Amino acid sequence: MNFTKMQGIGNDYIYVNCFEEYVPHPEELAVRLSDRHFGIGSDGLILIRPSEQADAMMDLYNADGSRAMMCGNGIRCVGKYLYEKGIVKKDCLQIETLSGIKELHLNTANGCVKSIQVDMGKPGLDAAELPVLPPEGASAQDLPLEVDGVLYHGVCVSMGNPHTVLFVENPAAAPVERVGRAIENHPWFPQKTNVEFIRVISPDELEMRVWERGSGETMACGTGACASAVAAALTGRAQRSVLVHLLGGDLRIDWALDGTVYMEGGAEFVFDGSIII
Amino acid sequence: MNFTKMQGIGNDYIYVNCFEEYVPHPEELAVRLSDRHFGIGSDGLILIRPSEQADAMMDLYNADGSRAMMCGNGIRCVGKYLYEKGIVKKDCLQIETLSGIKELHLNTANGCVKSIQVDMGKPGLDAAELPVLPPEGASAQDLPLEVDGVLYHGVCVSMGNPHTVLFVENPAAAPVERVGRAIENHPWFPQKTNVEFIRVISPDELEMRVWERGSGETMACGTGACASAVAAALTGRAQRSVLVHLLGGDLRIDWALDGTVYMEGGAEFVFDGSIII
Repeated sequence: MNFTKMQGIGNDYIYVNCFEEYVPHPEELAVRLSDRHFGIGSDGLILIRPSEQADAMMDLYNADGSRAMMCGNGIRCVGKYLYEKGIVKKDCLQIETLSGIKELHLNTANGCVKSIQVDMGKPGLDAAELPVLPPEGASAQDLPLEVDGVLYHGVCVSMGNPHTVLFVENPAAAPVERVGRAIENHPWFPQKTNVEFIRVISPDELEMRVWERGSGETMACGTGACASAVAAALTGRAQRSVLVHLLGGDLRIDWALDGTVYMEGGAEFVFDGSIII
Repeated sequence: MNFTKMQGIGNDYIYVNCFEEYVPHPEELAVRLSDRHFGIGSDGLILIRPSEQADAMMDLYNADGSRAMMCGNGIRCVGKYLYEKGIVKKDCLQIETLSGIKELHLNTANGCVKSIQVDMGKPGLDAAELPVLPPEGASAQDLPLEVDGVLYHGVCVSMGNPHTVLFVENPAAAPVERVGRAIENHPWFPQKTNVEFIRVISPDELEMRVWERGSGETMACGTGACASAVAAALTGRAQRSVLVHLLGGDLRIDWALDGTVYMEGGAEFVFDGSIII
């Protein structure tokens, strides 16, 4: 099986061109190939398939074999792959995912894709939709959360998945593991929550660390960056267009006036390989 | 640059055939390519070079860019690579390393290498050579080490690098991190020490977990398996030929009557790749 390893701000997947390759049992294969010592090593396996409704389909399997709805960092790589490998040579791409058709805008020069903007949809602020169960007198966008004697004010935002954004003085020194784990598993979140630790550097620049539910701290979370930008604008801390610095790299987030959140960032080829499966 | 990813009981390196490829700045390249999110991902980079004194030279760079003397799991992969890629088609190979020329015996069938035996040299039991500074009344092979109120009896064995072997009831439940870190940094070890946690299953079978100095717990340590087999035989707990079960797989260790330790185990190709460096 031929494959290509790509990464978007450190979120790395194995990409297979299923316009040409047939991949049997992708769930089982994702587990085996994602192993970082015995396999290729990755966050998961992304099959780029033909689609009847869009330019292509992104079929994503996590490293544990589960199927993912969508991944903002992964879909940017799919866009670059389709364009630079000459499969779909368009600046505006429609990609089918398990959470609907997503639109990509490619920033190209000399046949290369410099960055990719993804329409991430509209944020959800409704408590029941997130879901979060705020206590009497609190709201989903001002949630009092106490961990180890410190009171945090959580701003809850859904980007299809639940996020709780905390504004802190210094994310580098924040107790991300203790606080992240405690809030992820807090009884007010029936489906748990991702937790973002944000410093507002200036009205158009945020610094972020993220605790992902089920994964722990990661280098990058696209929906988390979107949720954080929305939370910062909503509470008057920043403008609707911000550059977010994550551990794995930068993302530009724009919250358009019609409510749509756009995420723009890079995608990189790492290497091509072939493996006997 | 063309490369091959291989692993020996979970110890995984990027292998480059330097009979054909030229690799500039390997120290810097090892760091960049070993990164598991932005690079190929590995424990390091092994350049297989022509040698004037042996069949080939193994030139090993760790993931931090430092140059390694020798690696038992890596050299088995070098043997399989040379044989199966047809570079040196001999059952008995001599490989130049920074710690001298090592002899490999290949167990082959139908052109494939089933396992590889490596001459690991003779163990060092002398306190000054290890080095270890035992307290008054103790010896290097019966060292009283107390951690968290528990007294361990360390058996110190050098396989070119220092090892302290502890015999425990159940390695799976052993506090490897706390005890490993404490003993690694104990003042009796001026160059620190690796620490092995060993259960004697039967006179010819050991179960092992290992704490490597500078790295923490790892899935496999070839010299650690050799040191543990020597320690078990020396203290009458096992025979001189044992199968050692490590987290990453099995190794057969034979301590010959002339004092030489032989290590036999597998080596596997994972995938072939090419990367622009």
